[in-house]
Amino acid sequence: MEMKRPEHVILTSHSNHVYRETTPIHWGAKTAKERGPIIATHSEHRNAIGTHAGSYTVYRALSVASGQFPRNHRPDLANTTATVELGPYDSWFDNNIVSLDPWGARITESYDDLLKQNYNIQPSIAVTSAHLQIPEISKSIEEGKIKVDGKVVVQKNDIKVTKAAIEPVWYLPGIAKRLELEEGVLRKILFQETGGMFPELVTRPDLKVLLPPIGSTTAYIFGNPEDLANPEVELTCRVHDECNGSDVFGSDICTCRPYLMHGIEEAVKTAQKGGVGLIVYFRKEGRALGEVTKYLVYNARKRQEGGDSASTYFYRTECVAGVQDARFQELMPDALLWLGIKKIHNLMSMSDMKYNAITRSGIEVVNRVDIPQHLVPLDAQVEIEAKKAAGYYTSGDVKDGETLDNVKGRNLHD
Amino acid sequence: MEMKRPEHVILTSHSNHVYRETTPIHWGAKTAKERGPIIATHSEHRNAIGTHAGSYTVYRALSVASGQFPRNHRPDLANTTATVELGPYDSWFDNNIVSLDPWGARITESYDDLLKQNYNIQPSIAVTSAHLQIPEISKSIEEGKIKVDGKVVVQKNDIKVTKAAIEPVWYLPGIAKRLELEEGVLRKILFQETGGMFPELVTRPDLKVLLPPIGSTTAYIFGNPEDLANPEVELTCRVHDECNGSDVFGSDICTCRPYLMHGIEEAVKTAQKGGVGLIVYFRKEGRALGEVTKYLVYNARKRQEGGDSASTYFYRTECVAGVQDARFQELMPDALLWLGIKKIHNLMSMSDMKYNAITRSGIEVVNRVDIPQHLVPLDAQVEIEAKKAAGYYTSGDVKDGETLDNVKGRNLHD
Repeated sequence: MEMKRPEHVILTSHSNHVYRETTPIHWGAKTAKERGPIIATHSEHRNAIGTHAGSYTVYRALSVASGQFPRNHRPDLANTTATVELGPYDSWFDNNIVSLDPWGARITESYDDLLKQNYNIQPSIAVTSAHLQIPEISKSIEEGKIKVDGKVVVQKNDIKVTKAAIEPVWYLPGIAKRLELEEGVLRKILFQETGGMFPELVTRPDLKVLLPPIGSTTAYIFGNPEDLANPEVELTCRVHDECNGSDVFGSDICTCRPYLMHGIEEAVKTAQKGGVGLIVYFRKEGRALGEVTKYLVYNARKRQEGGDSASTYFYRTECVAGVQDARFQELMPDALLWLGIKKIHNLMSMSDMKYNAITRSGIEVVNRVDIPQHLVPLDAQVEIEAKKAAGYYTSGDVKDGETLDNVKGRNLHD
Repeated sequence: MEMKRPEHVILTSHSNHVYRETTPIHWGAKTAKERGPIIATHSEHRNAIGTHAGSYTVYRALSVASGQFPRNHRPDLANTTATVELGPYDSWFDNNIVSLDPWGARITESYDDLLKQNYNIQPSIAVTSAHLQIPEISKSIEEGKIKVDGKVVVQKNDIKVTKAAIEPVWYLPGIAKRLELEEGVLRKILFQETGGMFPELVTRPDLKVLLPPIGSTTAYIFGNPEDLANPEVELTCRVHDECNGSDVFGSDICTCRPYLMHGIEEAVKTAQKGGVGLIVYFRKEGRALGEVTKYLVYNARKRQEGGDSASTYFYRTECVAGVQDARFQELMPDALLWLGIKKIHNLMSMSDMKYNAITRSGIEVVNRVDIPQHLVPLDAQVEIEAKKAAGYYTSGDVKDGETLDNVKGRNLHD
């Protein structure tokens, strides 16, 4: 077997190596300058583990390998700044936020001098505006349930929105504390259990920030984004975890898209009344277990003896995946804190895990709004009854024992 | 600064270390047994770099760190097997497929003896069935454009579908060859440019397979999945790259969801005529540059002098991202080859890059079908005219020079 010697590859595998001085990061400092830049680019001043764009770093690497990407490319950030400037808010300081960089949309403003010295600092948040045309909302407009007000909903059923894309930027000591772990243990297990991703998790304990290869988060804001931070302004919010099979393709085995659309409708209506609406969309497909596991579980659910039943809904996931849920809602409120939110008047979610995480972060929740029964798709009764029985919020009854067991799903080949 | 010594962490950083004997992988062999199992689990017999579930490996690692995940968990694969058995096809052999494991849905059938010996082998493909309820399709059914035939479209506007979730499994020598690179260069750059992800890319040249932390691919099949491999059966196919802002939220700046829905409609109609329909959905958000870059580019496009224009559509992406497109369509046809496809009668795509990749893989394309003009959203003229001018297929005119420049987009704050 021919073994190629690696050329000029620095593995940073020597733990007692004197660390080259890196630009310090003072996480939670009250100004971007004091906090210092997060430099997650393959460049001289790098001070974080990992790179930008989450998973898409792999495709960027292919672009470099294939010669298409100019190695020393510096992004031209002219004209890219946020369409609305948000913050800074008190919630940006200390260890309130640990899974994103609150200053991530303010790179050109905050680090102009360093950028001029050719530091390769890139945004991890981008804020723009859009017009949305959503069939369910258009239908509601046509049926007169939502009005064309010329501000939130304009001609041709357009919904005006501000939207923010937020990359993951993890402050490892803060993540560890949030998950009640020791930092060293977290770092070691992240390295080992991913099959050896980023040895610097172990060899560079001085690098406290990781940009992991996971999906970004997207916030859709209806109304004035600055009102999000004003607890006197009514806020309707849905926090949604991606489900491609329903959100895009309308699979009737779950309530995902219907609940999302209901959340958007209520968010729009609140904005039209002078309040503000918010949808935050996380990339946590299949309860963060991924789509392959999801489909394996669907098959196991529908083929088990007695067929798909609400009483075994979570158990079937656990059998295949080892856990019922890997979404770690503890990290979710950071996006809300970044927007300066102190109070949610109408939380369009039944999840007890989401509710607990939000209230524990210091945000007050007034009303919890469950999905109207008529919006639950035909084969999604199993999901919704199982969730209610497990502690999800409901304004209706909760089944248990035999009545829970009798909530059945469709057969696999029907 | 306190430096923690890593405990019992094997960095595999010694390139002349005698490699422990790993279960061999003979990529492209004609049976699963000859090919050998791909063991991408943190276990004794591991023979690949990386782990399952793409990006979601990070969340699984958090589950382990927080003590929720039983370290020695073996997935209970009872009842999880594919609802339809596909292949093997000739296209599964040799180096026709390099970016997924064609045997990935056949773990229990193929490696039963090894599983009984406690090898931790997991599926990388799962196949199930579903019923879809899509508003645009329901509207077409109500308008009589699509019939309820009781086979493909059943009562209550349900569309019956078989769907497959496919995780990325990269045979590095094959990937290198497909991208016309030297394997060692590809491996080194993948390691370096991702900020040091998987040093085994460099230190373990004997490990030829990588499971990268990127999104999975999903295939939606309307009609009989086995017909996909029969070139005598009419096949209508759309290959779609994820665009969350349009596919889920209906942003009118691009044609993504409308084209996807049109593709689904035509796929359904072909299946109803006795043919077969296929949608393949890839996770390549923002031309595989990610959503933050996408929004930065939107702002730069709309704020540039003269406003958003089709003549600068691609250039604006290149200024920010360094490249116009990082999707690497060369890898895309593997999903089609896995399904045994030899001929696509109606390719619902205008992309020259997709067309070239598909035909180069040996698949014949008969008709190319562009998006009907009435489906192009208001602010998406810039995108579609820029693409046509750049070489995308169209049945209509192509603009250039001043006429291209005059295709304008909406102002940022309108």
